[in-house]
Amino acid sequence: MSFRINSVLRQVAAPPIADAQAWVAGRSFPADCPLLDVSQAVPSYAPALALQTFLAEQVLQPTTALYTEIAGLPALRRELAAELARDYAGTITHENIAITAGCNEAFAVTMMALAEPGDEVLLPLPYYFNQQMWLQTLGIKPVYIPFNADNHGTPDIKAIADRITGRTRALVLVTPNNPTGAIYSAEFIEQCFELAKDHGFALVLDETYKDFRDDTGTPPHRLFARADWPEALIHLYSFSKAYALTGYRVGSVTAGTSLQAEIAKLLDCITICAPRIGQLAALFGLRHLDAWRNEKRHIMQARNTVLKNIFATPANGFRLVSSGAYFAYLEHPFSSLSAYDVARHLADEHNLLCLPGTMFGPGQERFLRVAFANLEVEQIVEFGRRLGDVSL
Amino acid sequence: MSFRINSVLRQVAAPPIADAQAWVAGRSFPADCPLLDVSQAVPSYAPALALQTFLAEQVLQPTTALYTEIAGLPALRRELAAELARDYAGTITHENIAITAGCNEAFAVTMMALAEPGDEVLLPLPYYFNQQMWLQTLGIKPVYIPFNADNHGTPDIKAIADRITGRTRALVLVTPNNPTGAIYSAEFIEQCFELAKDHGFALVLDETYKDFRDDTGTPPHRLFARADWPEALIHLYSFSKAYALTGYRVGSVTAGTSLQAEIAKLLDCITICAPRIGQLAALFGLRHLDAWRNEKRHIMQARNTVLKNIFATPANGFRLVSSGAYFAYLEHPFSSLSAYDVARHLADEHNLLCLPGTMFGPGQERFLRVAFANLEVEQIVEFGRRLGDVSL
Ligand SMILES: Cc1ncc(COP(=O)(O)O)c(C=O)c1O
Ligand SMILES: Cc1ncc(COP(=O)(O)O)c(C=O)c1O
Repeated sequence: MSFRINSVLRQVAAPPIADAQAWVAGRSFPADCPLLDVSQAVPSYAPALALQTFLAEQVLQPTTALYTEIAGLPALRRELAAELARDYAGTITHENIAITAGCNEAFAVTMMALAEPGDEVLLPLPYYFNQQMWLQTLGIKPVYIPFNADNHGTPDIKAIADRITGRTRALVLVTPNNPTGAIYSAEFIEQCFELAKDHGFALVLDETYKDFRDDTGTPPHRLFARADWPEALIHLYSFSKAYALTGYRVGSVTAGTSLQAEIAKLLDCITICAPRIGQLAALFGLRHLDAWRNEKRHIMQARNTVLKNIFATPANGFRLVSSGAYFAYLEHPFSSLSAYDVARHLADEHNLLCLPGTMFGPGQERFLRVAFANLEVEQIVEFGRRLGDVSL
Repeated sequence: MSFRINSVLRQVAAPPIADAQAWVAGRSFPADCPLLDVSQAVPSYAPALALQTFLAEQVLQPTTALYTEIAGLPALRRELAAELARDYAGTITHENIAITAGCNEAFAVTMMALAEPGDEVLLPLPYYFNQQMWLQTLGIKPVYIPFNADNHGTPDIKAIADRITGRTRALVLVTPNNPTGAIYSAEFIEQCFELAKDHGFALVLDETYKDFRDDTGTPPHRLFARADWPEALIHLYSFSKAYALTGYRVGSVTAGTSLQAEIAKLLDCITICAPRIGQLAALFGLRHLDAWRNEKRHIMQARNTVLKNIFATPANGFRLVSSGAYFAYLEHPFSSLSAYDVARHLADEHNLLCLPGTMFGPGQERFLRVAFANLEVEQIVEFGRRLGDVSL
């Protein structure tokens, strides 16, 4: 290679999931011990049949092949605004909404719009790795908030406040959390908003897993009910998990209109628009799949309940730190081994593919992330059984 | 708004096409003078019927809803590598290919992988605006190569060489060009490669419109036949235009494997993967739609021929500077008016929506871009007729 490559990018970690999937690539698994893959958060079920049928009609429409508006189909923006306004008892219009090619793009453009190289973003540990990778790529300094395992993973508000500086541009919260499954309280989220507003930075709230909270009858927070929400809140969402549409690439950013004007420039340059067929799928979901979505939430809850029962007491030394929505965060019992070695051992010897905590930031050597959403109840039981066999 | 917004991004221009489309938004047009919209490059026809039918089957497959590999479906990477290897008589494998959510994303990640803030990228005038916007957003300095209207828009190789510095990281060529329609000669492209290789920067070749060249029997250049192509060539492509799939968001980057490893990190953070249904559409296109694609090429050529005939002599003072593939670049006759005012007048008074040259960079006040691909032959004739009526 005769040309130079961005030296900052070279320092960024390789994509973690591809890394882990490479551990089992090319292997075949016996019928009595199939691979249990809890590495990537993908629903274990197909999209609703009615949605599939709808898409089969839509792909026959010539307009489906066309670009949409940069911020997305107006009807989808309106429908999402209406749902959020209803669920959060707040004031949100279509002008507050930009549709993105997935929630990762939503995060990517939000950070570019907020921060410049050398600025700082507060990121609780353990982090969602793509968020850390993206900040590092942009030359934005992630300032880590220590992991608070004792409080089921909810960060300490004082630990956040202590790390605010003149260069702080945002605090990122993921709730329900990836990787821990922790669901933050409305009070905690609202305290974070106050901190952000007082200090002139943004609270970036990634609620990709909001539809899988235990109780979706009450809003996860009351921030959207405040007239001043656009002054400090940016809300990210994904249609990937709620409607089992990971491959269709649809997400959203909800924010004030002056930020949206800047985000539109970025979306135009990166993807021009989210794929129209994905947008149509999301719109159909919002309009027709409330009951379906709720059903899936109950399924996830059942899986989580089974998991919690299995780990009511530590299983062979594996301890459940927290769980919720799609994920469980386990502490492994091998204090002298790194999570990476434990995860590789589980893959190599027990056909269990989960991710080592080390992929989610410093100080996570004792943890494993389990995307239990991928497993049927029977498989979760089997997962627990296999952990019982581990000796290292 | 209490938080700050990236001050560099604030300086970036608003999305040009949305801007122009706003000029006619909400207006209605009489039947005898309908809007002729040549603002955005979108094919005037639907995807092939066989492709639509294929997609209608695919959306009923549960796997279609799933993420793909970051670099795209292996089968698509192989098929595109094979087509490029055949058409360019070169050596390209699937490991050289990353599938992106459109060619804009391909450009976006390529620039991030090559350059850091403060670095320079050579960009011929007039530029494709999203490329300039993206460089500016990243803090990369676009170094403009003057417009060479006398040579139908092909830049002067000496003008390029003169602008190389120690911070030059890339030269961007778009051929067939957007906005001029110019198609660069193999010799010119190869000279640019030599410059790039000698000086240790990358030649980034955007061939989004390659399938609409007059002669697709001979390769646009012989660079892929060189064993050393990965040392200085990065090739960008879009499935948007070739298969009328703009809304499905599929494109590609072809490059050496060490660059691909860095690009994978960026794709993972931005869109995780290109939409699977779009990738399946692209794969179907490559496998089954050679004849269809060729037909569309002939249609575009016919349109271009009609356009060239109309402008064989200047029409009411409007002169054709260059044309090819999807675009024509016109010089307007009003030396005391800016292209912006002329374009607005054409929209307001003649229901013609084209883009002012000013959207494509400095020194373009005398020019208009016409995406003639959007018009049927009869509409092109009508377009010429309306220009004959313009008095300003
Ligand atoms: C917290 C979080 N945010 C964003 C995403 C990205 O989702 P999308 O598929 O919408 O890009 C994920 C996916 O796993 C996630 O866990
Ligand atoms: C030169 C050029 N590159 C890239 C693109 C983006 O195409 P895509 O739809 O693949 O993102 C366009 C679209 O108009 C273009 O003209």
